[in-house]
Amino acid sequence: MNFRSDNEGPAAAPILQALVDANQGTAHAYAEDQWSKRLDEAFSEVFEAEVRVLPLATGTAGNSIALAQLCPPWGSVVCHQQAHINQDECGAPEFYNPGCKLAGLTGDLCKLQADDISAWLSHQGAHGVHNNKPSAISLTQATEAGTVYQLDEIQAISAVARANDLYLHMDGARFANALISLGASAADMTWRSGVDILSFGASKNGCISAEALVLFGHPDWYADLERRRKRAGHLLCKMRYVSAQLLAYLENDLWLTLAAKANEHAARFAAAIDQHPTAELAWPVEGNEVFLRWPREKLQALQDRGFDFYFWPGSDDLARLVFACTHSDTLIDQLISNLDEIQ
Amino acid sequence: MNFRSDNEGPAAAPILQALVDANQGTAHAYAEDQWSKRLDEAFSEVFEAEVRVLPLATGTAGNSIALAQLCPPWGSVVCHQQAHINQDECGAPEFYNPGCKLAGLTGDLCKLQADDISAWLSHQGAHGVHNNKPSAISLTQATEAGTVYQLDEIQAISAVARANDLYLHMDGARFANALISLGASAADMTWRSGVDILSFGASKNGCISAEALVLFGHPDWYADLERRRKRAGHLLCKMRYVSAQLLAYLENDLWLTLAAKANEHAARFAAAIDQHPTAELAWPVEGNEVFLRWPREKLQALQDRGFDFYFWPGSDDLARLVFACTHSDTLIDQLISNLDEIQ
Amino acid sequence: MNFRSDNEGPAAAPILQALVDANQGTAHAYAEDQWSKRLDEAFSEVFEAEVRVLPLATGTAGNSIALAQLCPPWGSVVCHQQAHINQDECGAPEFYNPGCKLAGLTGDLCKLQADDISAWLSHQGAHGVHNNKPSAISLTQATEAGTVYQLDEIQAISAVARANDLYLHMDGARFANALISLGASAADMTWRSGVDILSFGASKNGCISAEALVLFGHPDWYADLERRRKRAGHLLCKMRYVSAQLLAYLENDLWLTLAAKANEHAARFAAAIDQHPTAELAWPVEGNEVFLRWPREKLQALQDRGFDFYFWPGSDDLARLVFACTHSDTLIDQLISNLDEIQ
Amino acid sequence: MNFRSDNEGPAAAPILQALVDANQGTAHAYAEDQWSKRLDEAFSEVFEAEVRVLPLATGTAGNSIALAQLCPPWGSVVCHQQAHINQDECGAPEFYNPGCKLAGLTGDLCKLQADDISAWLSHQGAHGVHNNKPSAISLTQATEAGTVYQLDEIQAISAVARANDLYLHMDGARFANALISLGASAADMTWRSGVDILSFGASKNGCISAEALVLFGHPDWYADLERRRKRAGHLLCKMRYVSAQLLAYLENDLWLTLAAKANEHAARFAAAIDQHPTAELAWPVEGNEVFLRWPREKLQALQDRGFDFYFWPGSDDLARLVFACTHSDTLIDQLISNLDEIQ
Repeated sequence: MNFRSDNEGPAAAPILQALVDANQGTAHAYAEDQWSKRLDEAFSEVFEAEVRVLPLATGTAGNSIALAQLCPPWGSVVCHQQAHINQDECGAPEFYNPGCKLAGLTGDLCKLQADDISAWLSHQGAHGVHNNKPSAISLTQATEAGTVYQLDEIQAISAVARANDLYLHMDGARFANALISLGASAADMTWRSGVDILSFGASKNGCISAEALVLFGHPDWYADLERRRKRAGHLLCKMRYVSAQLLAYLENDLWLTLAAKANEHAARFAAAIDQHPTAELAWPVEGNEVFLRWPREKLQALQDRGFDFYFWPGSDDLARLVFACTHSDTLIDQLISNLDEIQ
Repeated sequence: MNFRSDNEGPAAAPILQALVDANQGTAHAYAEDQWSKRLDEAFSEVFEAEVRVLPLATGTAGNSIALAQLCPPWGSVVCHQQAHINQDECGAPEFYNPGCKLAGLTGDLCKLQADDISAWLSHQGAHGVHNNKPSAISLTQATEAGTVYQLDEIQAISAVARANDLYLHMDGARFANALISLGASAADMTWRSGVDILSFGASKNGCISAEALVLFGHPDWYADLERRRKRAGHLLCKMRYVSAQLLAYLENDLWLTLAAKANEHAARFAAAIDQHPTAELAWPVEGNEVFLRWPREKLQALQDRGFDFYFWPGSDDLARLVFACTHSDTLIDQLISNLDEIQ
Repeated sequence: MNFRSDNEGPAAAPILQALVDANQGTAHAYAEDQWSKRLDEAFSEVFEAEVRVLPLATGTAGNSIALAQLCPPWGSVVCHQQAHINQDECGAPEFYNPGCKLAGLTGDLCKLQADDISAWLSHQGAHGVHNNKPSAISLTQATEAGTVYQLDEIQAISAVARANDLYLHMDGARFANALISLGASAADMTWRSGVDILSFGASKNGCISAEALVLFGHPDWYADLERRRKRAGHLLCKMRYVSAQLLAYLENDLWLTLAAKANEHAARFAAAIDQHPTAELAWPVEGNEVFLRWPREKLQALQDRGFDFYFWPGSDDLARLVFACTHSDTLIDQLISNLDEIQ
Repeated sequence: MNFRSDNEGPAAAPILQALVDANQGTAHAYAEDQWSKRLDEAFSEVFEAEVRVLPLATGTAGNSIALAQLCPPWGSVVCHQQAHINQDECGAPEFYNPGCKLAGLTGDLCKLQADDISAWLSHQGAHGVHNNKPSAISLTQATEAGTVYQLDEIQAISAVARANDLYLHMDGARFANALISLGASAADMTWRSGVDILSFGASKNGCISAEALVLFGHPDWYADLERRRKRAGHLLCKMRYVSAQLLAYLENDLWLTLAAKANEHAARFAAAIDQHPTAELAWPVEGNEVFLRWPREKLQALQDRGFDFYFWPGSDDLARLVFACTHSDTLIDQLISNLDEIQ
């Protein structure tokens, strides 16, 4: 009973089927296949704009390639201190763009605040070429705390970006979960709110190593992104198997159906915590992650009953449970009843 | 009728089945799953030694990670001028190890000669820290010309490596094809001949984006390799789908069966060329690649009949046809009869 | 009347003379000259140990080369958030070691606290290869706030370093000023307190672009440092002019005499502030830098009288005045009397 | 009696004097001093155009910074195989621009031929993003063989550059010697012949660690060059001492007078070789370097008489003697008479 992460489940049935279906005959290698060539159109429809899509196998690659494109080698990227790019990618963004710095700001609920960014920027550059040059802002949507930036929050940050000649990147490892949470359109949550480039995640929501960079405008960037992907070894020769997943993921709103299910699971568990005499929610549950504050021995008791999840690093009374589209309703029932039994 | 590359075919049936079978239940992410954990044992059996295995999605990543491990940032890697790492990876080895140089030597049949390496090394380092420091040799087996290093050739090169404190890397994108060609054991063609680390390719021989680094000895290197993989974004969260393929690939010698079939196709086509009045083999056919020297209009005629393949860059009378395990005997019959019809 | 920085003054007379004296005849290039060859011995005497010395033209190069030596490319360096390496080198440490991160901790008086480092380290590595690997600690001595680590503070930090397998680097851009402040020996303030490598600054204390890395132990690192210097373009062909300065700097304790003078100036000014009705010291004055808290209009008034200095970035009532060995006593008298006149 | 290199002599008297003169009072650090600020004007006069100048301490830094500006990280730089950037900078260009490759072509007299470059370019890019993208050409003037590109040769190469969207860099470590050799203007040998950026060397011709990048057009590049210099640790705080040398170097054509003297020495020695019964010139002497082909024992005999010079790497009958402005006529007399004595 695995609530460790939404990347530990199997692929959703239609995704696997799409991969199996793609295994027919030959196809041109290196993303010149018929599946990969349809990505631009399929994503453009979803995003209500002419976007360019770069399929990839991992989110870390997507984030790093995107940020290297947004920043000169002496640039800095504003992000939350807890951002995945800053904490969990073993220096990948700095490796992909040697000399670049991530500037990790604090902020409640793992969210950047537009005002904090402005304040930070006002101190930068006082020493000219001696300081890294702020060049981009990166938001994680949904955030590492399971919270979701509202549209007006994204827009406020994007206004700061524009006012300071910075580009705006969105790490959308849990993009679909955030979208469901907001009830917004993909366009509203991205380019209409000022996002320049999106790391579009699908692996956590029912796919197998299927991710994409989605580029809004900046048509001259695409050739660079292709080069960055190739020289990092991320241009899979058999890209059709990634692209076929992405196409199936978008088809008939499968991605939204899957994310809605995961979010629903999380909401049910959150509601159970709200009713619980001793358990507490550390942060509001807005996507598919629940942060449960509870004494260590109770968390341990839940684990002893077979429910697997992570303790927050450096904490012994804060647990993260991640809900996935592949979890069954019955499993959530079990989780809740076990929670209730531990008082 | 695609002879462009062996990476344009579908997965072999048992490989796809293994991937489908792996899609059950949850599994720990980031190569902590049960499939990935069995790789060391499975490869150790094949290689008759305790090897460590690092699964990966692409050969470019494998080559670059391996070479970065073998060389200091001011090192140089001896390779053939035509080596894939030097010509076709868009600077990936230099990106993964900034400051490193590839020293491309010439040599017939795309093979490095031990004597040429010795001669080259004798001129290096005359200027101390002003010269890059030769640190490794990289062989491609089978080579980019479709030829295969004999065991004694590998051993002669490895002797030069040892005598000069260099490590030896093998780019085994077509490892199985070479092995079949030599009739040697995996151990003989690698560590018994002095290879320190192998890029083990499977994608070109029936898998989907499944590759591995195989480390012989040097146990302290493994943790570094894991870091290098992670920070490059190559630690797939759902690695089980790669590892499951690799296990199926080795099981019951499937990999050898597949490679034998591809080599057999190539040999049949080569024999037809030998009999042909105007067509010629540019190089001996030792694996699954055939280099056909023929006037441009005849090569064009073959293409007009629906057979797709590459012209060698910069040449108009030299074509490369690559044979794959997924080609049928009938297809090869057709190819040969069409060749024969063009005189 | 320039109190902007101690790197804006001319060279001390004996330093300039040494440079002029070195301009005789030919000398082997690239640090193979007779001056450069005497550095190890001269520094070994000062440091009471067999040290190795790498002359350089800038402190940024020294810091970056040292840190690249101490850390793997996926390492992290603990430093103070305000450290020069983190704020004022435009990402040089990250450029020299692509993928490395600087982890900037806070701490009063721009000093790292051993306990804070321990606490920070206890949260690191929870996520294995996903986190950068803490690999080194870097102290600035004297600090960016003009304060000085006491010997027991260095030793406490070095104990944390040793306990966690980290190396200890000291950025000694103002090494001599700190040494005078402590009244300690060079050995006590470095290797006897656990420092592995020192960026030894001389440019701010009477030299012209003369710096050095001083290596304590780790004899196998020296060849790497030489490579790192060369490939960064920091192996000056005419290194004799740097080394001649360094030799003259150490001779007859010139360096200590110069630093004592600068510190004395700062102390006199600090005493005047202490007596002043409205001016205040922001931080204790322990070296040659004075941080003066005073209303903006009064700082402005001092500037209007011809005294040039920097406002602290982001602040309008905090000024930094840096005192140099090349300042005359009369100039300090003038500064103090002008301070006194502005009430 | 040192003919090892022109970087082993002392500074010319007016250069040293300029440095001594600059040692007066305070000056703003980091190239904001009055000497550095006059460089653009002084060089613009010499180059008959509005150029921008970036002072630096080493040629390796200049070359690497320039090439990083001309190439994307996936670019390649065409140069001669024997080019200093390719052979003697320990991978500096690849370190400054991780992922970039140097493509070393052959060519008589260490000169690139326009036709060879065109031919090479015609094979590049056949494999799209898999190949590095040719982005720049770098010429060494005078070359590593002591020869000099004629103006029409530079123009032919620059025409190839323009036709293929490549930029043109000139490594002018011995720029003045080449200029004297051609009797051309600085403008003719650079921007009028299509050069985009020049590494202007002065250290080998009478200065102490004084070099500069000279930028022709491309005004938006200058800010990037400043960043690249800073983050590499090459923005000297006391840049005035470099800039003062450069100003003195250009003043009253000192640089041309010095180079003419060195060339004259070389020409006299070359004439003596021409007359000699057994010694031979390996290549025409066009600047200040002489390549002497002579049996090993005779070269050894010359060394035994106290004349120091390098054997060419990998050769035992080819010696390089470099002549400097600081050599006296008497020394050249001695060298020639000793040559004559060895028959």
